[in-house]
Amino acid sequence: MDAQPLVGDSSRPLSASGGGGARPRVAIVGASGYAGGETLRLLADHPALEVATLAAHSSAGKRLSEVAPHIDLGRDPELVPSDVENLRGHDVVVLALPHGQSGALAAQLRAEDPDVLVVDLGADHRLESAEDWAEYYRSEHSGTWTYGMPELPLHDGPGGAARQRELLRTAREIAVPGCNATAVSLALVPLVRAGLVDPSALAAVLPVGYSGAGRSAKQHLLLSEAAGGAVPYGVGGTHRHIPEILQNVRRASGVADARLTFTPVLVPMSRGILAVATAPALEGIGQDEVLAALHADYADEHFITVLPAGSFPSTQQVTGANTVRIGATVDRRSGVVTVISAIDNLVKGTAGAAVQSLNLALDLPEGTGLTRTALAP
Amino acid sequence: MDAQPLVGDSSRPLSASGGGGARPRVAIVGASGYAGGETLRLLADHPALEVATLAAHSSAGKRLSEVAPHIDLGRDPELVPSDVENLRGHDVVVLALPHGQSGALAAQLRAEDPDVLVVDLGADHRLESAEDWAEYYRSEHSGTWTYGMPELPLHDGPGGAARQRELLRTAREIAVPGCNATAVSLALVPLVRAGLVDPSALAAVLPVGYSGAGRSAKQHLLLSEAAGGAVPYGVGGTHRHIPEILQNVRRASGVADARLTFTPVLVPMSRGILAVATAPALEGIGQDEVLAALHADYADEHFITVLPAGSFPSTQQVTGANTVRIGATVDRRSGVVTVISAIDNLVKGTAGAAVQSLNLALDLPEGTGLTRTALAP
Amino acid sequence: MDAQPLVGDSSRPLSASGGGGARPRVAIVGASGYAGGETLRLLADHPALEVATLAAHSSAGKRLSEVAPHIDLGRDPELVPSDVENLRGHDVVVLALPHGQSGALAAQLRAEDPDVLVVDLGADHRLESAEDWAEYYRSEHSGTWTYGMPELPLHDGPGGAARQRELLRTAREIAVPGCNATAVSLALVPLVRAGLVDPSALAAVLPVGYSGAGRSAKQHLLLSEAAGGAVPYGVGGTHRHIPEILQNVRRASGVADARLTFTPVLVPMSRGILAVATAPALEGIGQDEVLAALHADYADEHFITVLPAGSFPSTQQVTGANTVRIGATVDRRSGVVTVISAIDNLVKGTAGAAVQSLNLALDLPEGTGLTRTALAP
Amino acid sequence: MDAQPLVGDSSRPLSASGGGGARPRVAIVGASGYAGGETLRLLADHPALEVATLAAHSSAGKRLSEVAPHIDLGRDPELVPSDVENLRGHDVVVLALPHGQSGALAAQLRAEDPDVLVVDLGADHRLESAEDWAEYYRSEHSGTWTYGMPELPLHDGPGGAARQRELLRTAREIAVPGCNATAVSLALVPLVRAGLVDPSALAAVLPVGYSGAGRSAKQHLLLSEAAGGAVPYGVGGTHRHIPEILQNVRRASGVADARLTFTPVLVPMSRGILAVATAPALEGIGQDEVLAALHADYADEHFITVLPAGSFPSTQQVTGANTVRIGATVDRRSGVVTVISAIDNLVKGTAGAAVQSLNLALDLPEGTGLTRTALAP
Repeated sequence: MDAQPLVGDSSRPLSASGGGGARPRVAIVGASGYAGGETLRLLADHPALEVATLAAHSSAGKRLSEVAPHIDLGRDPELVPSDVENLRGHDVVVLALPHGQSGALAAQLRAEDPDVLVVDLGADHRLESAEDWAEYYRSEHSGTWTYGMPELPLHDGPGGAARQRELLRTAREIAVPGCNATAVSLALVPLVRAGLVDPSALAAVLPVGYSGAGRSAKQHLLLSEAAGGAVPYGVGGTHRHIPEILQNVRRASGVADARLTFTPVLVPMSRGILAVATAPALEGIGQDEVLAALHADYADEHFITVLPAGSFPSTQQVTGANTVRIGATVDRRSGVVTVISAIDNLVKGTAGAAVQSLNLALDLPEGTGLTRTALAP
Repeated sequence: MDAQPLVGDSSRPLSASGGGGARPRVAIVGASGYAGGETLRLLADHPALEVATLAAHSSAGKRLSEVAPHIDLGRDPELVPSDVENLRGHDVVVLALPHGQSGALAAQLRAEDPDVLVVDLGADHRLESAEDWAEYYRSEHSGTWTYGMPELPLHDGPGGAARQRELLRTAREIAVPGCNATAVSLALVPLVRAGLVDPSALAAVLPVGYSGAGRSAKQHLLLSEAAGGAVPYGVGGTHRHIPEILQNVRRASGVADARLTFTPVLVPMSRGILAVATAPALEGIGQDEVLAALHADYADEHFITVLPAGSFPSTQQVTGANTVRIGATVDRRSGVVTVISAIDNLVKGTAGAAVQSLNLALDLPEGTGLTRTALAP
Repeated sequence: MDAQPLVGDSSRPLSASGGGGARPRVAIVGASGYAGGETLRLLADHPALEVATLAAHSSAGKRLSEVAPHIDLGRDPELVPSDVENLRGHDVVVLALPHGQSGALAAQLRAEDPDVLVVDLGADHRLESAEDWAEYYRSEHSGTWTYGMPELPLHDGPGGAARQRELLRTAREIAVPGCNATAVSLALVPLVRAGLVDPSALAAVLPVGYSGAGRSAKQHLLLSEAAGGAVPYGVGGTHRHIPEILQNVRRASGVADARLTFTPVLVPMSRGILAVATAPALEGIGQDEVLAALHADYADEHFITVLPAGSFPSTQQVTGANTVRIGATVDRRSGVVTVISAIDNLVKGTAGAAVQSLNLALDLPEGTGLTRTALAP
Repeated sequence: MDAQPLVGDSSRPLSASGGGGARPRVAIVGASGYAGGETLRLLADHPALEVATLAAHSSAGKRLSEVAPHIDLGRDPELVPSDVENLRGHDVVVLALPHGQSGALAAQLRAEDPDVLVVDLGADHRLESAEDWAEYYRSEHSGTWTYGMPELPLHDGPGGAARQRELLRTAREIAVPGCNATAVSLALVPLVRAGLVDPSALAAVLPVGYSGAGRSAKQHLLLSEAAGGAVPYGVGGTHRHIPEILQNVRRASGVADARLTFTPVLVPMSRGILAVATAPALEGIGQDEVLAALHADYADEHFITVLPAGSFPSTQQVTGANTVRIGATVDRRSGVVTVISAIDNLVKGTAGAAVQSLNLALDLPEGTGLTRTALAP
């Protein structure tokens, strides 16, 4: 599936660490939430980085064992407040903050250390268009950072093989993609790039797990409310991942006027996104062309598997792994392409993408600390 | 929501029972499966019918308490083999059999008693087109029975108000709709009827519960396999409910060339279907027109609720009830109508539709033995 | 299972209603929570009572369709504040309030109408001992009401057949039992009464569903936290249902010095309690004696089923029903009796017990509005 | 928690591999089941072993991607039949077979290669007593292998510090413990060893996940049957893990006449065991003594965490990890010690114990390939 091994020898001196053998020091802000906590889970076993500081807002003062007893760091650090004083002096700062807060904090850190790598798990810096931002987030745009989706192909004319990962290698500010946006973009982008579908009628329905809704206590997220049912949200074009997906389509294909409708449905599982994406097939396009387009874009991707004809993924196959599994077919009667992708929203959809991206930015093997084997059953 | 009460005085003499006060006697074939069992659950509390016989194939010889300990009939009958000898002499025979088996059995029963009411929970007699049957079921068509969806509007020119229920009042052979077909048809039919959408590009993705897959022991249905994930099936236009839905669209709207793509996704819950249906809105069509079309068709329907603008249903709201809840909106950017319907696949999707239909055929108040209140949380 | 039908002709004039045919009017306070909501669900279909008023605290001003869209009253009332002004003038007031609040409200209502029936779903008036109350609830005791467990046998010497239901027939103030207390008490009481076990070493472990923890938004109750795991709470003798269970043992058996250890475990389901209760068998006691004792106490109980030897209940068998299912055995090697009972915590454990008790107090057939058939699968 | 790191430098020459740098080759028999599959999941990332052969019975001929698509070996081997021909020539053979089958196969392998390490995930060789075997398994005993619970303390007089791991270092035949037996034994053994409880009245109730019941398709294991409920099994002293637990107690404490009652309860989760164990405290024993006894036995154990007073584990804290988390308290009113342990039944309860044990037998660092960080939420 991939030509060269991505998980290298972790004992070699890291270029990012200055050669002295010291491992880059990471601070995680928002470590008591799901996004920050999952980043910590992955970094706990990362052989080339040191988790030096955990910061939080309302959970500041608590011990790790209180907020994330499933994670073993070999010690039980206290979560410190998310102040600049606590965050300065790190090589990497990962931010899991409510949107609107990461820009100012990043600027302060950057002012002190121009080399600091800041990775934002939130939405603030994903969009290029200030107009889109204003329309979907109803606040002022705080700028665009390097988008943390290494596998995203970039539109550079026929035969182009550029990927987003090239941009990540030199990034100092990384905006980690939205989890739904990851699942949908990776499913649809190759079809639009290859000109196989009508990009004006893209659609996706996504059964998603509850961890995507965060760890704040809200009544509709209670197990009693959620067990035994399916609950749609963000119906009717209101979901904030729509402009992000269309931006990805545009960057990958050059198609600027794609249109997408998009409905996530909360289903009773903790993790997982199954994106069922559809688009009208252009005349004469069949399953072979669709699978060929997916293979063309992903055959060399370590974390993306295109399934054989007739096979479709389930989210159980990716739980805990940084993998994307994609299956596709064409319904000949309705003339519609269906592409289905499965990811773990907290790994490839959030923390795994962050680790993969920061590995690139630190000149580490891209897959360090990430796995392709999922936890099942 | 409805003009006249549908649940009448159950103590009045039933016309169907000949006036002598005896309640019609019902036999349920396949009582140990989910469809038959749910029919029994509903009939156990039905005030105007008597469950006289329970029949089964591999479970014959077992007691009710062994196969359905959750049901209390006040006695513990033995399940008898599904032979004609055991089934003759009933006023109503409900068949929950693998497809291909109900036709011959019904013919035998009819030969003995021309008045017997036969209700088939299986697929055999839903389709009008022998060609569709052959294509999707790969076997010989065994005829078309009266379709058990009372609320289905029938195409009869402008202003027409005919419903499928009129046909059910005189039916002696009823084909109960497929559960997914019910959820999708009731969501989309009003939009096509009202000419609000392009019927050539209908789509639906349906998170569904596992009971729809039946009670036979299969590895992929085990809790260990299924918990914590979402699993698509019948992808790419292969699902057998597609011709049934298109038939409903045609009968309701006169549109004969509608096209539908359709993907069910198993999610870890026992019951429930959430149909997320989409279609391109025609020029100038907005949410008001869409909701008006739904109200026009369903305002008088006892079991169907059209939710106010901005509200969408969840399956928790219908568990155990015979209700359909529908919400709709138009995504102005993508130009797509999204209609979401929620049903309990075993009630409105199967056994409830059967009871509702046989109530009509027996001249009982249509809602007898059925509830609009769901079990939640 | 029961000698005489408990569900009578609901159309007869109710003695409680003064003979004029008007149905007693009920107010439910705390209707937006799980206990109050479930009471409403049951009363929505109750043929002899009228739900006249729904009251709430923080949800006052909302419509029923917002807080309990699964319940259909045929109208959509607004929840009013829980003030005396809104609650006066009802025949029955059901209180689902945080503990400490029901006593004063009841006194005010009583002062205005000495005949009003007040049913408290909370803990305030369950305990007879002010000392126990102070020890477990750390507040002042507000008195003891008639305990709402009709089936509880009362200790009245050999051959005594008195039940708690006799006391409920004349009650004007009813304290509905705790859900865990119901499951454990009904399992253990017959064994202690019959002198089959050592009452100083009673134990119970109870896998329980999350609805027992209420509807308030708390982090540890989120689906993401709760799915996929088992979480003990109230470990080590701290659970407040312990004195209630021991009080039941004492009232039923005369044994005043019973001791109980008790551990509930939250498991990922909305409803249900499975009480696994154990006690050392006295010399020579075997399964026959144990089952005989259970039958002796429960053979005539409409809602309690003692399973045959070798059978044990599961909570799926009681979901939505007012039933208790009990199985028992003796482990000959360890000399321990194991009795397992299953209930739906919201029905027999809370709202069903309330309805059953108020039926008695209103001189209605005890089982009116309650079912013995559960919702499965 | 542990004095010296157990996960060593995996790049050093393994003594087991003969110094030539080649990694020991492992065959897994029964790789398509849960126990075998989980062993494969762990070994897929094991840095010092090579998974050379996957064998199966009914799944022979299938590819790994068909039976375990969540596991990535970087290749997609075919499962071969479980014949001696396919299994010879490996350094390690892991057997996940129905009981009764592993003895003969092991003998054949041993006859060809006296050094082969055989690890049995099944029950056949756990018990020392042929009488116990005959009583609980109703078949002939096939001998006793070295028990794969490294942390089990061994009774060797006051101050003794022997552990089962010492025996495992030279083992060639390892019997991996039962999952329930692991959870209960590790919870109770320290209390009996320290003489804090009455060993004649041990009890345990265990909410357990469905994967413990295996991957064979059985109706009662279907998600539709299992979701939303708790189901006891093996009630009344019939469970086959009882003699295994008592054997552990005896070997660890010298107490030969302990008695245990034991009830597992299936709850709707895939993985996890929460053992709620109780025993009467001896006079004067309180929480301090109990926690001290647990610390005395486990303070140096890498994979066992004794929680501070007032804290209790949940299974979410161990999912996917090889950890055991234990909390304990004393109920002063009832005089009972409650010890609660949480494990992942497939990891520490099965495959993790296997890997840990074979690491010892291969002279690898004991924790190689195992993690203390769990997957949550």
